[in-house]
Amino acid sequence: MILNLGRKPVKPTLRREWAQPARTAQELLERLGPEKVLLERAQRRNYAYDGIALGVTPALVILPTSTADVVEVVRFAHQVGLPIVPRGAASGLSGGAVPLEESIVVSFTRMTALSIDPQARIATAQPGVVTYRVSEAARPYGLFYPPDPASFRTSTIGGNLAENAGGPMCFKWGVSGDYVLGLEFVDASGQVHRLERQAYDLVGLLVGSEGTLGLMTEAKLRLEPLPRYTHTLMATFAEVGQAAEAVSQAIAAGAVPSKLEFMDNGCICAVEDYLRLGLPRQAAALLLVDTDGDDPQVVAEELAWVAEACRQHGGQVRLAHDAAEREALWKARRSISPAIGAIKPKRLNEDIAVPRSSLPAVVRAIEALGRQYGLQVVQFGHIGDGNLHPNVLFDPRQDPEEKVWELLHEIARVALRHGGVLSGEHGIGFMKRDFMPEAVDPTTLEALYHLKAAFDPANRLNPGKVLPQTYSPLPESAKLSP
Amino acid sequence: MILNLGRKPVKPTLRREWAQPARTAQELLERLGPEKVLLERAQRRNYAYDGIALGVTPALVILPTSTADVVEVVRFAHQVGLPIVPRGAASGLSGGAVPLEESIVVSFTRMTALSIDPQARIATAQPGVVTYRVSEAARPYGLFYPPDPASFRTSTIGGNLAENAGGPMCFKWGVSGDYVLGLEFVDASGQVHRLERQAYDLVGLLVGSEGTLGLMTEAKLRLEPLPRYTHTLMATFAEVGQAAEAVSQAIAAGAVPSKLEFMDNGCICAVEDYLRLGLPRQAAALLLVDTDGDDPQVVAEELAWVAEACRQHGGQVRLAHDAAEREALWKARRSISPAIGAIKPKRLNEDIAVPRSSLPAVVRAIEALGRQYGLQVVQFGHIGDGNLHPNVLFDPRQDPEEKVWELLHEIARVALRHGGVLSGEHGIGFMKRDFMPEAVDPTTLEALYHLKAAFDPANRLNPGKVLPQTYSPLPESAKLSP
Repeated sequence: MILNLGRKPVKPTLRREWAQPARTAQELLERLGPEKVLLERAQRRNYAYDGIALGVTPALVILPTSTADVVEVVRFAHQVGLPIVPRGAASGLSGGAVPLEESIVVSFTRMTALSIDPQARIATAQPGVVTYRVSEAARPYGLFYPPDPASFRTSTIGGNLAENAGGPMCFKWGVSGDYVLGLEFVDASGQVHRLERQAYDLVGLLVGSEGTLGLMTEAKLRLEPLPRYTHTLMATFAEVGQAAEAVSQAIAAGAVPSKLEFMDNGCICAVEDYLRLGLPRQAAALLLVDTDGDDPQVVAEELAWVAEACRQHGGQVRLAHDAAEREALWKARRSISPAIGAIKPKRLNEDIAVPRSSLPAVVRAIEALGRQYGLQVVQFGHIGDGNLHPNVLFDPRQDPEEKVWELLHEIARVALRHGGVLSGEHGIGFMKRDFMPEAVDPTTLEALYHLKAAFDPANRLNPGKVLPQTYSPLPESAKLSP
Repeated sequence: MILNLGRKPVKPTLRREWAQPARTAQELLERLGPEKVLLERAQRRNYAYDGIALGVTPALVILPTSTADVVEVVRFAHQVGLPIVPRGAASGLSGGAVPLEESIVVSFTRMTALSIDPQARIATAQPGVVTYRVSEAARPYGLFYPPDPASFRTSTIGGNLAENAGGPMCFKWGVSGDYVLGLEFVDASGQVHRLERQAYDLVGLLVGSEGTLGLMTEAKLRLEPLPRYTHTLMATFAEVGQAAEAVSQAIAAGAVPSKLEFMDNGCICAVEDYLRLGLPRQAAALLLVDTDGDDPQVVAEELAWVAEACRQHGGQVRLAHDAAEREALWKARRSISPAIGAIKPKRLNEDIAVPRSSLPAVVRAIEALGRQYGLQVVQFGHIGDGNLHPNVLFDPRQDPEEKVWELLHEIARVALRHGGVLSGEHGIGFMKRDFMPEAVDPTTLEALYHLKAAFDPANRLNPGKVLPQTYSPLPESAKLSP
């Protein structure tokens, strides 16, 4: 599943000099202790990849256990002139945690402190806390942490916040950033900041900035009361447009489903091949819908509106009558990854978001692109937000990787043409950074460079991510007033 | 109600030279047309104040009707070297729209275009749209715009977003910034940016930045389905601590009231003097609580939890049984402003936010401060968020204004000591900018200066707001990399 960037050469954006590496690395090792510093090449190699790409083997890997450790590393990086690449569980799908040049990888997996304040409904988490553990720790108090990226059993809070991850629940409940009340972060010069959301919203700026503006070392997360009831339905349609219209009608009627998932025909067939669940292979679209809340009648009524809207648009509806049936319906959704993974040796997962009304046209345009490129594309996503994940399935022995990347670019352009954005929930990373000039107007891109330079003048924090050509000369107007 | 800053001299933060003002102002007048440019001193004087303070009469007042007009003004300001102070309805309570030196005031009251997309549930509003008009326009589609600052019948979307205004509904529904999907803004050099919320969250950064980073010219606002039912209760308590504990217990039980307002004894007596509603003058605290939703049973049940919690903590509870009774109960809350305004000729409205658990201690500490300073302080606010508005009532003929300001500083310090923040919903403006070094650690303050300099290197956008001493030399590290 991992792309080897060795084939698609990564151009280091700047040649850096590392002054006396052996001596200084030894110094850091003595300060932090040997268990926090990985020097062996064989160990370091494991930190060159994320969920989608393989980058440059880092010069050093640090496994901090405290904010003080992170400060040490940042100061050290400053001294030796090496960039820093922060890393959670490395399950990201945009290359955000992949080193693009000789770097120090800071892996946060050992910073796992987590505490719950049930009265204030706040979880305080270090970045290495695995996401699902927040809800697990909150459950005894009747609380939960809503953001639920598909990877939530492996991915970390730090990674989720860096990419501002979403998930099936984000239509009703919002994305990761909506739950961040405060942050501690270490800046490029090694200073520690502790922030709440006030005045200039630095917290909101750090969230989604993919480690390019600072390293988050702690987050205060808002918890919500666990809904007491959840109801579920599945609906299949002969046309994608019908599914999209049913969703629009249900939402217009006042339904706010907690999950609203879409699968296209390719996805349906892949899952059916994989699990034999009895899904209709001829269906063009499948919807999976949850409603939740504290009153069973309201939850059922809300789902009934959705069912009615589906039927009115030609949908075949199946309601789950208990937890076991709910589980069975959701199995189809959760099996997408292994099911489509079984079709071809590799896949690349796009992540676009478009206005819901454009969804039928976008799905059709992407299907046509797949045929044009002779590559198999299957599509699924969170239809409530118009967040679509077209996956390109390919065999690197037969399909040139350049063609795959070209197709991904074309898919992104379809989103932009339909008034959408480049990333629904996976981030920009380095995979989409070169699309930014097509997605953001030049003056705004300039403002983003100014921002980056204000926080990280030497471009040492996760260089090469989010912004294209980070080292193009900064525009004249970027100069600070004296 | 207006403080005359002439008494408390405003120190211009920088002497600026206006090159050939008469000629260039004439040029601008010719470009924009005479109806958009106010040159007469008598007219300009009306633009020197906001809801709380009187500043310096602006050199020019511009009333743009389009983004193109705003671009003209910003370019003109750039040429002549004058700062720009953006202004909505000027109902702000932190001095955000008050010119502190000779400036060009850009009054957005004529930019009032508003459109509703009911399918997408989005309102597109120019900054001069009066806030309540968004919900009014959305109501025929069963939608509304939740942020409801007390001023929402006069204040504008532009001002609300600049200050990231809250309101009684913000406990359940969130603050203004939570509803901004996209922004158009004009930067310090006159470039127009159109942004959605992606990658670096510039939209979130602009919201709450009080016009110091750019001038917002259009906002895309998220609308929500109108709840079908609202239930209301009032409860009175012998102690503030009881009210705070009742609120905590109700929330812990799962209630998410849509409004949760608190009044202290001073407030209760002021309203009773003013309206004779039969409120108990001996009560130390009064709560007003709304629950809302689409199912009348759930809405009633949620309110019942609150009533039960209030009774368990010694509260006397009155339930409203219909719209007329609800209206009567809320009358007490809506009358606070005129009621306390009738006590003394002037008042200054603080705006702090503290953890809910600290509320009893904070209310007591502020009462003690009032006695110590010999000034009357009444307190009310949105208790769900711990957002408290201590109001200092005074007579400028007897009470030296310095003493009032000193008391306000001490009140802010009480909030900070109890883990609170400087502003719940009114913004920092210039009233609280000098507290920022006490509220934000020095390294973070430095980061805020970097941010400001990255967007507005010449400090021409609403100078003197949010950040103290904007013209202190920037720290060495603020220099951009070459």
